[in-house]
Amino acid sequence: MSVLGIDFGGTKVALATADGGPPLRDTLRLPTLAPAGAAQVVERALAAARTLTRRPTAVGVSTFGVVSRDRIRLAPNVPGWDGLELPRLLREEFDATPVVVHNDVNAAATAELRWGALRGVDLGIYLNLGTGLGGALIAGGRVLTGAHGAAGEIGYLLGADPTRCFATGNAPLEEMASGGALATRGAALLGRDITTVSELFDLVDRPDIAALLDTAVDALAAAVANLCIAVDPQRVVIGGGMMSAARHILPRISALTARAVPFPPEIVAARFVHDAPLMGAIALALDAAQDVPRR
Amino acid sequence: MSVLGIDFGGTKVALATADGGPPLRDTLRLPTLAPAGAAQVVERALAAARTLTRRPTAVGVSTFGVVSRDRIRLAPNVPGWDGLELPRLLREEFDATPVVVHNDVNAAATAELRWGALRGVDLGIYLNLGTGLGGALIAGGRVLTGAHGAAGEIGYLLGADPTRCFATGNAPLEEMASGGALATRGAALLGRDITTVSELFDLVDRPDIAALLDTAVDALAAAVANLCIAVDPQRVVIGGGMMSAARHILPRISALTARAVPFPPEIVAARFVHDAPLMGAIALALDAAQDVPRR
Repeated sequence: MSVLGIDFGGTKVALATADGGPPLRDTLRLPTLAPAGAAQVVERALAAARTLTRRPTAVGVSTFGVVSRDRIRLAPNVPGWDGLELPRLLREEFDATPVVVHNDVNAAATAELRWGALRGVDLGIYLNLGTGLGGALIAGGRVLTGAHGAAGEIGYLLGADPTRCFATGNAPLEEMASGGALATRGAALLGRDITTVSELFDLVDRPDIAALLDTAVDALAAAVANLCIAVDPQRVVIGGGMMSAARHILPRISALTARAVPFPPEIVAARFVHDAPLMGAIALALDAAQDVPRR
Repeated sequence: MSVLGIDFGGTKVALATADGGPPLRDTLRLPTLAPAGAAQVVERALAAARTLTRRPTAVGVSTFGVVSRDRIRLAPNVPGWDGLELPRLLREEFDATPVVVHNDVNAAATAELRWGALRGVDLGIYLNLGTGLGGALIAGGRVLTGAHGAAGEIGYLLGADPTRCFATGNAPLEEMASGGALATRGAALLGRDITTVSELFDLVDRPDIAALLDTAVDALAAAVANLCIAVDPQRVVIGGGMMSAARHILPRISALTARAVPFPPEIVAARFVHDAPLMGAIALALDAAQDVPRR
């Protein structure tokens, strides 16, 4: 058995084959070339897939955006991706081979469930604190994708001013506390580019940087505590690029959760950080392959 | 087949038998006499149960508080109820008969799933806006009780000041927006007692009352919108005593949800308002009875 995983990201597409769990067999990366639109990304990715494997047992795909009713939604990063019928295009390519498509955060949560920090967890929460913010709910040991594929889209959580919201083109929590927002605001304060959020945490002696980070981490901690109050999970697993500053972020999230949640869950770092969505695509493919008769 | 339902409330205990869905067969109510403690409530309730039925097929019980690891927690209303091993006491009384115990909001959600506004809903939210605030998550067509029985305890959701929280003895959303909080604050403003929240809504020409209600309904609406962003439910069903003012509350919750949630769910009133937990206890008993061999 060999499965194929494809992770469509805003800047790169990653592909891999695997025979089971980690390690991966062959991997391949290509730039998304976002301004050139959705069609060329899909075409180049499928051409690359053919060089990796001709007959995978199953295909798992992770993508930015929300997979809703066989189309991708809420995916502004690549022109044409919003509304794209990605599942249909993939079924046409792979014919009778099972294909599963989820958004990148749900895929990453699937990898954590299968091999990582969510193993054995019946009721849990996975959070991805990266350039954007996303989450996934785990119930019955499975990822709950939501009625429209949008469960865990925590970037839209309301802040103090509820008039700034999805309808006004805002994603309040993401604009306050995501890695992307912190990089943009930090760069403006410093007058130079920022590569990772941990660079900012190294500069907390500057009051303006400290204030920026405090506001963000406080907002994240309150959001996590409120999610835990609502869901009462066993465990919260946190991944994503902001985990480069995990030692500054996790203890503050844990501390507020311990105070604000009647039965506080464990708060732990994810196993997969950089390659979580690709590992998730492989995990989705392996799940789908279980339903395929052996050849 | 005849099942027994018992609803332990802060001021009254309600009991009923039923042969299936509504209507109930026999019902009975007794005062909780809370200051006299937990033991006498359980004893009098079980004595009353014996007068209703000698051999129920199954017993469903709803109680205030959280049912966590075979004890009741977060139940300060009746001395001795917090920590009470209610499931054990019930098993001793009813011997081999199946007994299911849930908190009152989870029980009410079970009634809505079986006969009410959550029928056929796979992923949903039930909210009880009453003297206190509570909620239940529905996934896979079942109530998710949480890892410690505390899923949906929305009264503890944090407000603007996260230092006021569970650890400080506060329940921030409940203190701002519950029927109990509004009755207390409204009575203080008016200099007289308030029976229902709808009495306050009849006095919105008074600026102080209007401000009180606006703050509360805005906080409820933001909490519902954030729950919907996190869970992406098909439908939100709202019950509880505050629904006497449903026409003032539901449209404002629906309006914010429609703006703030990427894929807004339906927001509808519950079918069971006054007797929801008792109907829920019956629903729990009927669920348990399905697993019992016919006699």
